[in-house]
Amino acid sequence: MNIAIVGYNLGWVLTFESGFMLLPALVGLIYGEKEGWPYLIVGIAGLLIGLLFVRKKPKNKQFYTKEGFATVGLAWILMSIIGAIPLCVSKDIPNYIDALFETASGLSTTGASILRDVEAISHVGLFWRSFTHFIGGMGIFVFLLAIMPMVGGLNMHLLRAESPGPVVGKLVPKMKDSSQILYLIYIFLTVLEFILLWIFGMNPFEALCTSIATAGTGGFGIYGDSIGGFNTALKWIVAIFMILFGINFNAYFLLLARKFKDIFKIDEIKVYLSMILISVVAITINIFKMYEHFGDALTDAFFQVASLVTSTGFATTDFNQWPTFSKTVLILIMICGACAGSTGGGIKVSRFIIMFKAIIQEINLFIHPRSVKSVEMDGKAVDKTVVRSVCVYFLLFGVIYFVSVFLISFNKFDMVTTFTSVLATINNMGPGLEMVGPAGSFADFNWFSKLVFIFDMLAGRLELYPILLLILPAMWKKH
Amino acid sequence: MNIAIVGYNLGWVLTFESGFMLLPALVGLIYGEKEGWPYLIVGIAGLLIGLLFVRKKPKNKQFYTKEGFATVGLAWILMSIIGAIPLCVSKDIPNYIDALFETASGLSTTGASILRDVEAISHVGLFWRSFTHFIGGMGIFVFLLAIMPMVGGLNMHLLRAESPGPVVGKLVPKMKDSSQILYLIYIFLTVLEFILLWIFGMNPFEALCTSIATAGTGGFGIYGDSIGGFNTALKWIVAIFMILFGINFNAYFLLLARKFKDIFKIDEIKVYLSMILISVVAITINIFKMYEHFGDALTDAFFQVASLVTSTGFATTDFNQWPTFSKTVLILIMICGACAGSTGGGIKVSRFIIMFKAIIQEINLFIHPRSVKSVEMDGKAVDKTVVRSVCVYFLLFGVIYFVSVFLISFNKFDMVTTFTSVLATINNMGPGLEMVGPAGSFADFNWFSKLVFIFDMLAGRLELYPILLLILPAMWKKH
Repeated sequence: MNIAIVGYNLGWVLTFESGFMLLPALVGLIYGEKEGWPYLIVGIAGLLIGLLFVRKKPKNKQFYTKEGFATVGLAWILMSIIGAIPLCVSKDIPNYIDALFETASGLSTTGASILRDVEAISHVGLFWRSFTHFIGGMGIFVFLLAIMPMVGGLNMHLLRAESPGPVVGKLVPKMKDSSQILYLIYIFLTVLEFILLWIFGMNPFEALCTSIATAGTGGFGIYGDSIGGFNTALKWIVAIFMILFGINFNAYFLLLARKFKDIFKIDEIKVYLSMILISVVAITINIFKMYEHFGDALTDAFFQVASLVTSTGFATTDFNQWPTFSKTVLILIMICGACAGSTGGGIKVSRFIIMFKAIIQEINLFIHPRSVKSVEMDGKAVDKTVVRSVCVYFLLFGVIYFVSVFLISFNKFDMVTTFTSVLATINNMGPGLEMVGPAGSFADFNWFSKLVFIFDMLAGRLELYPILLLILPAMWKKH
Repeated sequence: MNIAIVGYNLGWVLTFESGFMLLPALVGLIYGEKEGWPYLIVGIAGLLIGLLFVRKKPKNKQFYTKEGFATVGLAWILMSIIGAIPLCVSKDIPNYIDALFETASGLSTTGASILRDVEAISHVGLFWRSFTHFIGGMGIFVFLLAIMPMVGGLNMHLLRAESPGPVVGKLVPKMKDSSQILYLIYIFLTVLEFILLWIFGMNPFEALCTSIATAGTGGFGIYGDSIGGFNTALKWIVAIFMILFGINFNAYFLLLARKFKDIFKIDEIKVYLSMILISVVAITINIFKMYEHFGDALTDAFFQVASLVTSTGFATTDFNQWPTFSKTVLILIMICGACAGSTGGGIKVSRFIIMFKAIIQEINLFIHPRSVKSVEMDGKAVDKTVVRSVCVYFLLFGVIYFVSVFLISFNKFDMVTTFTSVLATINNMGPGLEMVGPAGSFADFNWFSKLVFIFDMLAGRLELYPILLLILPAMWKKH
């Protein structure tokens, strides 16, 4: 392990995260809230320490997969630890473990909260919570790569560790340009949502917090009833943008490049949109009798499906009260998740496509034992090592899931709470069912469980390996 | 598909199953119950029809994997359909779908029941229910191969489709001898259990039904409280035999061959026994405060762990009332299951071992990208195609599980009932939690759900493919 270069990169992460803290300090200035001070102080201190670390570039430029994964894993842990400090010091969340949970939940775009009353939090705190979603959604290294030249040759390893999905596709030959394009699309969509939300009735602060939280498909709301209190038009706008942020960003790049036909060749997007359509229809049929107006049932069904399939976690209603059928559909699409290369969470549609094709291939071998067909996606053969990685990913996901459930079961909460709280965190969803349902919170778990959830949230966001590898001694041996 | 030879084999299956029906007819004679008549009549009719089908051997001896899987899948469906007739005609279970559920549950050694009051059933019906466990436990084709010469060259394909576990190991060079040895071990252990149960206080009928149900790791009890009403010694005997029937039968063969050292080289058995030990200790610590005597807590914990890890499904207590931690441990060991090559259900310990090693291999590739280590078990390298099959098996299991949950969620039962009822059937466990807990039954599900459960039970017992392949059109095309 090349410790020097990992430390150098972490220095840049610290520098930028601290710089971002000046934004909530500014919010404090605008609203005249004293909660802004800790952000200013921690921000300036972090900036100075960070710049100290990046003073000179390390000599040893050796940087492989191992260093890439360690850098990303440690960076996200560091960001959670630092980001929690002002939340705690400002007394918005006085308990540090709780503040750490909230920050890890924000950065990992989970949106699970330990707050019982979100409306008691300052504007500064609310903004910082939402802003962590924005940083976490696209990833800190995509951002760093977009704005500055990194130490040569390591870009691919960092992106591979931070980006969602089984394969990292380069949009254009240069990785730096890819990162810039991704961030421009990300910012453009966020600004568009902000403007629409403002036009249709939110105040600028509401529109800002909601749009950056949607962008990261995070899910922290600024009101106790999440999005439930806004008008129907706003609900539809948020729902549609959740779906847009859950689409593989390659599609937007193709849109920019005017390759419209190629967009419809992406299998993942077809499956993703079909899944949303079918789920909305099924749930609407299942719940419309509970509503006075059919339109309200449709709005809630569409919003909840969009929120769960992208693992955002915003809510317009307490779907805990829905029938078992609807809850089951929501759990299924939540496990599936959004597209690879989007800001959405879950296992990702493309992995499911590859999995189904691997199963069909295996079944085919029973009928035609000498068949040599390979797994295909978007009309191209998928490399065998990718297929193997995808299969192993599912199993590893299952293992981490069940180990976490085992650890959480030490709390004496009911089975549904135990099983769905872990699912909601490892999938970066936010709310689960029963005690952790959309109207509940994670406050009552003990500190040990909260650490398990923090591990699950970060592991889920970084697709398991960057966080998991950190605990292996073999990672820390010298080459 | 070579239909002629499949039909010929099904003829033998019909012949033997019908022959077995003379046993419950005999029970009817002993107890003077009129319920014995339908078994006698269906048995004789089935025998005649079966013998008609096997009058002459088919000329076309072409028999590949495809034919093997189709034969086994169809045979088990046929056995369920035929076996349900006398249960229904005798009015023990007047509804045919219910009788079919009960028979499929018996043959697949699930032990899930639609009976609300098992004590209302005749001795004849109780015996037949338990006896289906005995047929299903070791498999009908292992039995056929043991007692008669089959059409040449097809033995391996049949055993591959019917035997549990990722690899079919031949005990001795000749498959026929392997089958005989397996059945002799099976019968020897059953008789031993029968004698011990009789000595320690059961009457012969109780001892017979309990021992044959334990042998198949089935779980149909003959009393409403399952094994709960028997004395402590009997509980320990049943628990120990459940564990013995869950061990890979290769171990007993090595015992017979006096290769004692080799037994301890089998990784699967080491993991299986360690898992049982750890679970018993953990659950006992978790529940002993609920009991007056520590010994009773230990007995219940040991019995329940043995029952769930082997997917037998006998109960000495309503573990639905246990704390979430204990219930979670039970669910985890139930998913894991017993050893391959035993009569136990679940995914099987050896698959988990291979899965964990595949995960470790994948993780290793991040740290040492040019590593070429292969997955090893029992000190030998596991073939790559086996590793791939095991990984795909898990995924396919997951897919069938979630599709079934989706279909079952149309019933308006609670989430825990919905999710655990499917788990209990596809794993051939029997009881789940809440409504389908050890004190409950599957009676209230609608007929469609019962058909889904029947599919899951048979698919679970035959390790998915033989049943799944039947619904593919490609299976039925001519070569």
